[in-house]
Amino acid sequence: MYNTLLVETDARGVATVTLNRPEKRNAMSGEMIAELTACAATLGADGGVRAVVLRGAGALFCAGGDLNWMRAQIDADGATRGREAGKLAAMLGAWNALPKPVIGRIEGAAFGGGVGLACVCDVAIAATDAKFGLTETKLGLIPATIGPYVIARMGEGNARRVFMSSRVFGAEEARDLGVVARVSDDLDAAVEAEITPYLACAPGAVAEAKALALHLGGAPGQAEVAHSIQALVTRWESDESREGIAAFFDKRKAAWIAQ
Amino acid sequence: MYNTLLVETDARGVATVTLNRPEKRNAMSGEMIAELTACAATLGADGGVRAVVLRGAGALFCAGGDLNWMRAQIDADGATRGREAGKLAAMLGAWNALPKPVIGRIEGAAFGGGVGLACVCDVAIAATDAKFGLTETKLGLIPATIGPYVIARMGEGNARRVFMSSRVFGAEEARDLGVVARVSDDLDAAVEAEITPYLACAPGAVAEAKALALHLGGAPGQAEVAHSIQALVTRWESDESREGIAAFFDKRKAAWIAQ
Amino acid sequence: MYNTLLVETDARGVATVTLNRPEKRNAMSGEMIAELTACAATLGADGGVRAVVLRGAGALFCAGGDLNWMRAQIDADGATRGREAGKLAAMLGAWNALPKPVIGRIEGAAFGGGVGLACVCDVAIAATDAKFGLTETKLGLIPATIGPYVIARMGEGNARRVFMSSRVFGAEEARDLGVVARVSDDLDAAVEAEITPYLACAPGAVAEAKALALHLGGAPGQAEVAHSIQALVTRWESDESREGIAAFFDKRKAAWIAQ
Repeated sequence: MYNTLLVETDARGVATVTLNRPEKRNAMSGEMIAELTACAATLGADGGVRAVVLRGAGALFCAGGDLNWMRAQIDADGATRGREAGKLAAMLGAWNALPKPVIGRIEGAAFGGGVGLACVCDVAIAATDAKFGLTETKLGLIPATIGPYVIARMGEGNARRVFMSSRVFGAEEARDLGVVARVSDDLDAAVEAEITPYLACAPGAVAEAKALALHLGGAPGQAEVAHSIQALVTRWESDESREGIAAFFDKRKAAWIAQ
Repeated sequence: MYNTLLVETDARGVATVTLNRPEKRNAMSGEMIAELTACAATLGADGGVRAVVLRGAGALFCAGGDLNWMRAQIDADGATRGREAGKLAAMLGAWNALPKPVIGRIEGAAFGGGVGLACVCDVAIAATDAKFGLTETKLGLIPATIGPYVIARMGEGNARRVFMSSRVFGAEEARDLGVVARVSDDLDAAVEAEITPYLACAPGAVAEAKALALHLGGAPGQAEVAHSIQALVTRWESDESREGIAAFFDKRKAAWIAQ
Repeated sequence: MYNTLLVETDARGVATVTLNRPEKRNAMSGEMIAELTACAATLGADGGVRAVVLRGAGALFCAGGDLNWMRAQIDADGATRGREAGKLAAMLGAWNALPKPVIGRIEGAAFGGGVGLACVCDVAIAATDAKFGLTETKLGLIPATIGPYVIARMGEGNARRVFMSSRVFGAEEARDLGVVARVSDDLDAAVEAEITPYLACAPGAVAEAKALALHLGGAPGQAEVAHSIQALVTRWESDESREGIAAFFDKRKAAWIAQ
């Protein structure tokens, strides 16, 4: 059914969605973004699904936005850029509001948009050796459409530091920052333990409790989402983003790094 | 003066309010809600009161909303439901804005509305073995009018997990979530140590500092309070809430739990 | 160039700003507030500056607002009070929005407005033995214009406790509260390690990432800033603030402390 995702639902109604581009470190291409949006709608509407686990193939969660997709936006016209940034934002919004418990299973690494995916889960659980980072500014880019969701988890002070520095950090720090709720040496057992309680709860009450938390907790409104989309489009138009992506593909230092 | 509360004020101006329905695990009945609202107004206006301690009788803080009161709302007409949910919200708002330092002394357990009471204190201190949980969704209900106050303490990400899962957690986790500020093996000493500094501060400045923190920190506005009241009323009208409460009183599993 | 600040920029573009009134524990006088505002504008506009470190002279960060300056406001007319409170708020806003990474180096102590300065940095790092506190209410004052920035870091629950109690706390608690991101026994090495990653990032992207975090993270709007200014002006007009400052200079207990 999907080219970039695997979806399996067990007898209890627990659906596991696997980002399945392991050869690309599960980076989000335009196709994966579209399929994730469709998948969220399908799972949300399926009365047989009680909980969702989001994970990556190949012992890695998600390396972020696919840099070929990113480069295509930099070379595209303004209308295309706006449309593509909007699709990314819509996908994140759909997962954030999915009316079931969503548990992120984070092993290996979550970078850039991968951290964004972790932050639209209701709870993320990381393997002890998982690595995290918003490394956009090293590439001349910014964490934009994921911004509202990351800030909701780590607060504005931590977000300023993490957004600007491109610093990579470990699972314990991700927990201190609120990106993940638990760190475990036995990720399968920890995810299973997390799932169990939801299955004893009334599904309609669970969905309404989530909607209430989103409403009161300040899920990003239209203005914030539009602002983050425009910030990304503007950044894609910059000389820095063109230089950063080019330096990455050329395997050389970007111009702003002391040689 | 009160049927469900004990209130004592010492020579220093420290008032201790005790939820006093130990045979009902200090669950909040309609009468207790009304008395708590009146008590907040009295303490707030009493110039001799410098600080307030809120605690429960019988080595337990508060088990939440009284399920007989809850069942009465499910059987009531819409106007009654709205009025009763509004009274609960008004009580929480009155305690949240009480212009004195309010210290929650949490021993035994705080569930549902009891967690809400902890979250309208300025600081809550828990005994090491205290248990916490928002177990509403197990009963087909949702944490509604307490929602804004709980989210203000634990943030939207933690709130989504705690609201949906009905998971019970301990005092250390309650501290990590921001529900309590301290955990202590010697609760009386910890509460006493917490009180002392406030007594050296100018009472008017303390009240203005609290009002400023509430204003800037996003104390729930009328729209949020109204939204949470309506969410509770809607939920009281659901088949799930009727089934959840009935299953509780019948001592059987609710329909949504695998048999 | 400045009377109350030292500013040095190294070959990498790292500017170090030192609050330089060690004989007054680097307390913020009217002159220092004006110079800090001018300095933020200069550093923000200087393309050669890649990162900023804010520190204090004499092994101490900042004792807060200068009490002679504070006393002058209490004796001033309403227009002067409003203007001076507005200058303080504008200085904090300018540092909060400075479009470069700003790293606070906190040794010795940060009290009152000094905590405010720590909270407008993107990241603050404290020496293990540094002390912190918002001790305004002991003086009959309130933490007002710094309020929005402190609340953004510690959340409303912690802010209520810290604003009201005037309690002094250590570096570990400052980290738990989000006032500082790290605590270190070797402050110079920790600050240096914090600076390095920013220097590999695209400067324009760093500035846009910061602006996005401020926008989405709820940097205080005009209404909040105006509210905090008015709260300070009102408090300066109170009998309590006059008594608190007088008692401080007279080295006696204030009237509200049990004798």
